[in-house]
Amino acid sequence: MRITAIQEATASIASDIRNAYIDFSKMDVSVVKITTDVVRNGEKVVGYGFNSNGRYGQGGILRERILPRLREAEPEALRDPERDNLDPFRAWDLMMRNEKPGGHGERSVAVGVVDMALWDIVAKIEEKPLHRLLAERYGPGEAESHAFVYAAGGYYYPGKQVEGLQEEMRGYLGLGYDTVKMKIGGASLKEDLKRIEAVIDVLGGDGSRLAVDANGRFDLATAIDYARAMEPYGLRWYEEAGDPLDYALQAVLGEIYPGPMATGENLFSHQDARNLLRYGGLRPDRDILQFDPALSYGLVEYLRTLQVMRQAGWSPRRCIPHGGHQFALSIAAGLGLGGNESYPGIFAPFGGFADDLPIEQGRVALPDIPGIGFEAKGKLMALYESLFTA
Amino acid sequence: MRITAIQEATASIASDIRNAYIDFSKMDVSVVKITTDVVRNGEKVVGYGFNSNGRYGQGGILRERILPRLREAEPEALRDPERDNLDPFRAWDLMMRNEKPGGHGERSVAVGVVDMALWDIVAKIEEKPLHRLLAERYGPGEAESHAFVYAAGGYYYPGKQVEGLQEEMRGYLGLGYDTVKMKIGGASLKEDLKRIEAVIDVLGGDGSRLAVDANGRFDLATAIDYARAMEPYGLRWYEEAGDPLDYALQAVLGEIYPGPMATGENLFSHQDARNLLRYGGLRPDRDILQFDPALSYGLVEYLRTLQVMRQAGWSPRRCIPHGGHQFALSIAAGLGLGGNESYPGIFAPFGGFADDLPIEQGRVALPDIPGIGFEAKGKLMALYESLFTA
Repeated sequence: MRITAIQEATASIASDIRNAYIDFSKMDVSVVKITTDVVRNGEKVVGYGFNSNGRYGQGGILRERILPRLREAEPEALRDPERDNLDPFRAWDLMMRNEKPGGHGERSVAVGVVDMALWDIVAKIEEKPLHRLLAERYGPGEAESHAFVYAAGGYYYPGKQVEGLQEEMRGYLGLGYDTVKMKIGGASLKEDLKRIEAVIDVLGGDGSRLAVDANGRFDLATAIDYARAMEPYGLRWYEEAGDPLDYALQAVLGEIYPGPMATGENLFSHQDARNLLRYGGLRPDRDILQFDPALSYGLVEYLRTLQVMRQAGWSPRRCIPHGGHQFALSIAAGLGLGGNESYPGIFAPFGGFADDLPIEQGRVALPDIPGIGFEAKGKLMALYESLFTA
Repeated sequence: MRITAIQEATASIASDIRNAYIDFSKMDVSVVKITTDVVRNGEKVVGYGFNSNGRYGQGGILRERILPRLREAEPEALRDPERDNLDPFRAWDLMMRNEKPGGHGERSVAVGVVDMALWDIVAKIEEKPLHRLLAERYGPGEAESHAFVYAAGGYYYPGKQVEGLQEEMRGYLGLGYDTVKMKIGGASLKEDLKRIEAVIDVLGGDGSRLAVDANGRFDLATAIDYARAMEPYGLRWYEEAGDPLDYALQAVLGEIYPGPMATGENLFSHQDARNLLRYGGLRPDRDILQFDPALSYGLVEYLRTLQVMRQAGWSPRRCIPHGGHQFALSIAAGLGLGGNESYPGIFAPFGGFADDLPIEQGRVALPDIPGIGFEAKGKLMALYESLFTA
């Protein structure tokens, strides 16, 4: 068995949204398609990968460093020594050959894109959904059939803040979501509190169904002001108050704010994750870790991150990855994470889940097909076909 | 005044060296040339930038994100509000527009390449060497005319470890260096101790003229074994024992090893530098910080890092940047750092200093010409001409 082709392209996921830090008007992603000579159901097994949103496509690093190393590898060097399959761990070591330690960003996205496609292939060769394969190999044995998902959005609507926001949130509830997330930090505290209260109204007065996200924008004083003002709402969580690497800020906030806090989407290695757990003062009984496997060197590295968590006394249940993609959903259902993010209607067709499996009571089912489940998303498959005809 | 052209290319700096972590057989760098419409001495002012070694060229990120933002900027948006010159701080904000926080690597290199060229231009427009401009604007007022440099090398010579290494080190002493650095961690402790003793012999028995570099390779147990074994030598410093992000390892080592330690070349932002100072247990009276401004978002960010250091009670004198390039040398002489790395004969023509200013007693003089001093390096200028004829 061998890889016979690796195709790579960049696709736009531009949208007119913006958070407290950036706008997404030029956001794009890298896309890969890896073809093997293994035949299942009369067709060659193919794996698909793409990067999660927010950190741009990584075509340069893929074309100049990561893909050449994979292409130059002997087929034997990529083979699982215990199974007749590819070995994503050996592929990972090859892709990271002659890469210095530290500096985890961008490169971590490029490797994540390929890692996703490799796991898609591995599960297809075993003719299993990835979440089931993961549960058997690295998880509790049996995969979960559904995962908690929440609708991330809650943007700013200049000129009609309250109405626009409430309308957006009603839309998510109509789609089957129970829990929603909104942006904060793009307006004054006073205006943000009005927005929060407007959303809680839509949620039947239940603040525990609302998370808020500052996207790393606040300094300590502002983060504390928001913490004190928001505490009475009993929110689901308070996300990325300060710079993602400012562990001291996070630790101080954790002493002030009794509710759950969430962070980690902008940490891209198990070493960075370990520093967050060592120094960030996070509380394993309530806080949420949002490391995104697709942005962070893929599942091979995410398994190391879960190991770091276990050593620090954390349950995988505390993880709800960033990104809203099927890869993280498969990992969530397979390894017993706490759920997955979702961006209804945005970052399509990479974001979102299987076409015929709607959200119900804030949970989504996983498709029962081999691999990550991309074939259950018509528009995603159509995009791959248009990108890689030949 | 405005930027009229930005040219970008990739150049190889392949060499047959390797450290304990990677080999440099495919190492390359990004190179930029920025032309302005400002005329000095009858010619248009041009700035040159390139990335420091070890983290590869960043053509993808430059072409897709950083350079388009700069090219789309109005000339006014890049102008220094206080002087008739470019403003690298405003350029920095523009280049980092719509970039999320965290994940500092690769992108930090791309921005560093451009930042270098902008500072070259700023100093040329003021018709001063950069080190003098920096001393006046941000430093002690008067620049130093010379800086301490040490020869980094000390590679492995399969089959003739001791002889090859001693010959290499004698070569550095012959070039005028007083202090040298060698690799460790690529052989057994026993063999490395033999190599260390062989080099100390060449240095007249003075271990304080020798630094050793593990390139982040050791786990804690190995790092401690080396620390205990090397302590009697009284080495100049013990560099990057463990993973650059493993601050706990560094902190434990600092309690065990009384001699100077050095690290920081694989941390690429002021946030990462701050974490090292907060959590790494480094000692401001003896340890060395090696942040490389060219790999770390350039001088604009390096000034933030120096500010973080000052707040933590550190003198700039404790900095001896990684990289061996003239940009860091100018910063060292201008801002009163402790010196600069040098790789004699490697990474040419990007590494190394002015052609006609030899190393003397372990120090090098800075050329008295406008800008960073690239025009005093014939082969570097010849390479730029060959890359950007047009």
